[in-house]
Amino acid sequence: MTFPKKAVVLLSGGLDSATVLALARAEGYDCHSLSFDYGQRHRYELEAGRIIAERAGVVWHRVIRIDLNAVGGSALTADIAVPKSRNETEMAADIPITYVPARNTIFLSYALAWAEVLEAEDIFIGVNAVDYSGYPDCRPEFIEAFEKMANLATRAAVEDHRKIHIRTPLIQMNKAEIIRTGTRLGVDYALTHSCYDPTPENLACGQCDSCRLRRKGFEAAGIHDPTRYAPDPS
Amino acid sequence: MTFPKKAVVLLSGGLDSATVLALARAEGYDCHSLSFDYGQRHRYELEAGRIIAERAGVVWHRVIRIDLNAVGGSALTADIAVPKSRNETEMAADIPITYVPARNTIFLSYALAWAEVLEAEDIFIGVNAVDYSGYPDCRPEFIEAFEKMANLATRAAVEDHRKIHIRTPLIQMNKAEIIRTGTRLGVDYALTHSCYDPTPENLACGQCDSCRLRRKGFEAAGIHDPTRYAPDPS
Repeated sequence: MTFPKKAVVLLSGGLDSATVLALARAEGYDCHSLSFDYGQRHRYELEAGRIIAERAGVVWHRVIRIDLNAVGGSALTADIAVPKSRNETEMAADIPITYVPARNTIFLSYALAWAEVLEAEDIFIGVNAVDYSGYPDCRPEFIEAFEKMANLATRAAVEDHRKIHIRTPLIQMNKAEIIRTGTRLGVDYALTHSCYDPTPENLACGQCDSCRLRRKGFEAAGIHDPTRYAPDPS
Repeated sequence: MTFPKKAVVLLSGGLDSATVLALARAEGYDCHSLSFDYGQRHRYELEAGRIIAERAGVVWHRVIRIDLNAVGGSALTADIAVPKSRNETEMAADIPITYVPARNTIFLSYALAWAEVLEAEDIFIGVNAVDYSGYPDCRPEFIEAFEKMANLATRAAVEDHRKIHIRTPLIQMNKAEIIRTGTRLGVDYALTHSCYDPTPENLACGQCDSCRLRRKGFEAAGIHDPTRYAPDPS
C-alpha cells in the first residue's frame, strides 16, 4: 500500500491560494494548509481560509499567530492608507506600501519547519510573477533562492536527503488563467477574499490594487465575478 | 555628520550570541537585538538576553513571541528528554533531537524583516561551524544561501540596492576562542546561559551537550568558568 504524498499549502483565503490548494489536491496530495494571523487589516481572509480548507478536504488546517506588527512598515499591518484606484502603470511603477517586509520569507520558513516535521517534500505557494503587484518576494528568482536555502537548512535535506520543492503552479499565469483553472477544478471563488480594505460587512472595496486585478481577471476570463463589492462611492 | 551603522543582532542569551553582540558593538554598530520566545524549555535565557542587551547598550531589545510548538518535533520545545553526558563522538554522530526544525531560517527571516524596516544592512548571528552540535542551519553554506535569498526578498535589496549581509563572526572559532574574544571585550559570561535543561533555580545541568561544550571551552581558554552548575548527581 502506498500513502499519498504530503504537501504544505500556504493558504491566505484569497483567490490565488485557493486555486493552488485545488491544484495540489488534484495532483493527489494530502494537503496541510497553513494560514497566518499577522494582525492584517483584512482579517476576514482568515475565516475564508478556514472555510476553503474544509471544503477542499485538507488533512489539517493550521493558523499560526505571528508578530509582523512588531516590525511594522506596511499599509497591511500598520496605520497607513491603502492606495486606491491606481491604474496598471501606477501599480507597476514601484513596490507598493502594502508590501509587508520579508513576508513570504517568514511564511515559507514556517512552512519549511512544518514540512520537515510532517515529512512532506512539497510546499505550495500562490505567488505570481505576472499580476504580482510588484512584490519582490513573488519573483521566480526569489523562490529558487529560497528552495536552495531550504535544502541546506533542514535535517530532512541534510541527513535524509529528502529534498524540499517550493511549488509555484501559478507563477506564470495571468489572473484570467488562474480563474479559469480554479473554476475547472471546482473552486468556489465566492468564498475567497482578495480586498485589502473591505467594509465592516466584508464587502470588497473594488478600488484597491487587489480588487482591481481580481475584477479584471474575471472579465478577461469571461467568468461571472461572484465577489460582493461595496456600492461605488462616486 | 555621519550616523553609526545599524545592525540587527540575534541574541539568545547564550555565550555565543553575547559575544557576537560585543563584537558588533566593538565595530561601532548601533545594535538592535532580537530574541524569540518560542516556548523553549530553557526560558531563563530570555531574561538573560534582556540583561545582556541592556549591559551592552543596545538601542532596542525586542522579544518576538513565535509559535514553534505548533510545528513540534524538538526536545527543546516538545516533551522529549534532553540527551545527557554524550561524548564528542556521540555529539558529532548525528543531528541531535534538540534540533528545532528550521529554527535559524525562521529567526533570520524575522531579523531580515526588522532590518528592512530599520534600514540596517547587517544581521549578526552567533552560528558556529566548529563546536556546532551538528545543526544543519549553522553551516557556512546555509548562511550563504540565506544571504543570497535575502537579497532577492526585500524591497531594500531590489529597489534601493541596499544589500543585506549575514555576519557570522564566530563561524570558524572554537569555543575557547569565542570565550577569549568575549572576555577581551568585557563580556560578563556569568550573565549568559547555555544549558538546555537547567534546574528550577536556573543552575546549569552540566551534562547536556551545550553545558559540556561550554565547560570544555572555559577549560581550554584557561579562563575561570563563572557558570553556576547544579551539584553532580553521581
